[in-house]
Amino acid sequence: MNEQNKIAVLGGGSWATAIVKMLSENLETVGWYMRNEQAIEHIKENEHNPNYLRSAELNAEQLDLSSDINTTVANYDVLIFAIPSAFLMKEMEKLSISLNDKIIFSAIKGIVPETGLIIGEHFNQVHNIPLENIGVITGPCHAEEVAMERLSYLTIACQDETKASFVGTSLESWYIKTKISDDIIGTEYAAMLKNIYAIAAGIAHGLGYGDNFQSVLMSNAIREMKRFIKKVHKMKRNINNSAYLGDLLVTGYSIFSRNRQFGNMVGKGYTVKSAQIEMSMIAEGYYATESAFKIKENNGAKTPIIDTVYGILYKNKNPKKEFKKLADNLD
Amino acid sequence: MNEQNKIAVLGGGSWATAIVKMLSENLETVGWYMRNEQAIEHIKENEHNPNYLRSAELNAEQLDLSSDINTTVANYDVLIFAIPSAFLMKEMEKLSISLNDKIIFSAIKGIVPETGLIIGEHFNQVHNIPLENIGVITGPCHAEEVAMERLSYLTIACQDETKASFVGTSLESWYIKTKISDDIIGTEYAAMLKNIYAIAAGIAHGLGYGDNFQSVLMSNAIREMKRFIKKVHKMKRNINNSAYLGDLLVTGYSIFSRNRQFGNMVGKGYTVKSAQIEMSMIAEGYYATESAFKIKENNGAKTPIIDTVYGILYKNKNPKKEFKKLADNLD
Repeated sequence: MNEQNKIAVLGGGSWATAIVKMLSENLETVGWYMRNEQAIEHIKENEHNPNYLRSAELNAEQLDLSSDINTTVANYDVLIFAIPSAFLMKEMEKLSISLNDKIIFSAIKGIVPETGLIIGEHFNQVHNIPLENIGVITGPCHAEEVAMERLSYLTIACQDETKASFVGTSLESWYIKTKISDDIIGTEYAAMLKNIYAIAAGIAHGLGYGDNFQSVLMSNAIREMKRFIKKVHKMKRNINNSAYLGDLLVTGYSIFSRNRQFGNMVGKGYTVKSAQIEMSMIAEGYYATESAFKIKENNGAKTPIIDTVYGILYKNKNPKKEFKKLADNLD
Repeated sequence: MNEQNKIAVLGGGSWATAIVKMLSENLETVGWYMRNEQAIEHIKENEHNPNYLRSAELNAEQLDLSSDINTTVANYDVLIFAIPSAFLMKEMEKLSISLNDKIIFSAIKGIVPETGLIIGEHFNQVHNIPLENIGVITGPCHAEEVAMERLSYLTIACQDETKASFVGTSLESWYIKTKISDDIIGTEYAAMLKNIYAIAAGIAHGLGYGDNFQSVLMSNAIREMKRFIKKVHKMKRNINNSAYLGDLLVTGYSIFSRNRQFGNMVGKGYTVKSAQIEMSMIAEGYYATESAFKIKENNGAKTPIIDTVYGILYKNKNPKKEFKKLADNLD
């Protein structure tokens, strides 16, 4: 790895925009692929993304924008994917260029619905990227606060420490601190599981549970997350590090989290379908729930919170009754 | 321990009132000492505490109210103290009756300013109560949510499990779940330390740090709490249980926490003195900070957050500069 390794971001949403902003603090040029051509024109003219994170000021001269994924992939070595997991497969189908020798960092939090894999595993198994060329960028970090340049901490995980350091250095600035980790599997599962717990927090809120219950729910959630990740990938990790507990808290306590909002609507009595229609999107945690449930059925982790959310979202169980049962299992 | 052991609450504040309400769900008679005679008359007539937690409905017939601490202590076996730690010494000076054979449960979160001891230690060392007759009632639990009968979880700690169970059973109801623990020292230190971290969260908020930082602060705080408590009383405990992490979260994330409010004012530029005058009270965490700092100076625990709060509150250091330094030490 050296300074010549060029970095591009793939995706046009809030988190992609935030990462472009962070990289722009350090790099002369940032590659940026998004499919929306109108948004690209708007950014070039007005120096902000018209659709997401509008308050983030960008410098158009630094941006090498393209609406052709192949152009961006061809010209850059380090590719940071920030495409919602539900659209990743569709975007990857457009690729005619090999990903050999590319370094892939995932800033996606979730599961690829079609394969049921977390992003790192998906790139490894479906696209044959060797694990040492795969990394993860994880929070706790709301994109909105990056736009406001409020101090935030990122964890950059990669088995190859040099690559983690390179990406970390490219992202850090006076308002971004980075930490590197070799727990690529654990950090990615944490980022996925926290969305399920945010749905749970939302359901609880929708049902009328208060702050006392929320704190008990979160304290049980981090213990459940620890058990789950330990079954999936056993290694020495401190589950109370920011990449795990911090990420859980920033999402579980955020009224802006779409997963929490989705849960809140379900708790208030919306059907899953109508909550999704009302939100005109499907929260990441929805897919994560099914996937996590399947995984734990295989490995036997004790996950009462995931089980409860799964029953409500996929088995049409009654939220009020299920949370009453769950409450008896928390401590 | 048997059903005849009679329980009284000492104190007239929100938390005392909440505990009286919980006990009233189970006991025919609840002893209740408070020094304010007018409040007692009001409760007898109107069935709510006029000064604190007014929304909690009480049944006057069940209450054995007294403004004489000696009357209450004489007539009851299990005494639940919920007097603010700053006033405990003064109240105890009124006692002419022996506490021998009494079972003392502390629902006080903090340090006795005059002795620098947590409540359990204070009763043990100053009043010669044997440790097996001392217990702790701890959250996570806002009194306000008890008044609203929102599901809440308490941890009841005592070295003597029978006593913990007895008090737990007397408190639990359809909206209160209890758990027993033998970690009387750890749970009490957790309840004290969380107030310091709530002050830290408040200072950060006052200085303009956002939710991303808050989640990193809390994730560092729970690790710091673990190190601190381990030095004070080493035993096997899961710091992510509700009595530790849950209690930290319910306070650290609460905009109603007086400790957090106090910190917020300090972060916004109030002097410590003027913040205290403005709030017309001294937040528990203020005393806890000095005491915790002294303890860690003795035992060598690494406590960057406590050190920072101590420097700001007691050494007149600049909050902005100190938090900038602290931020470099978090991860």
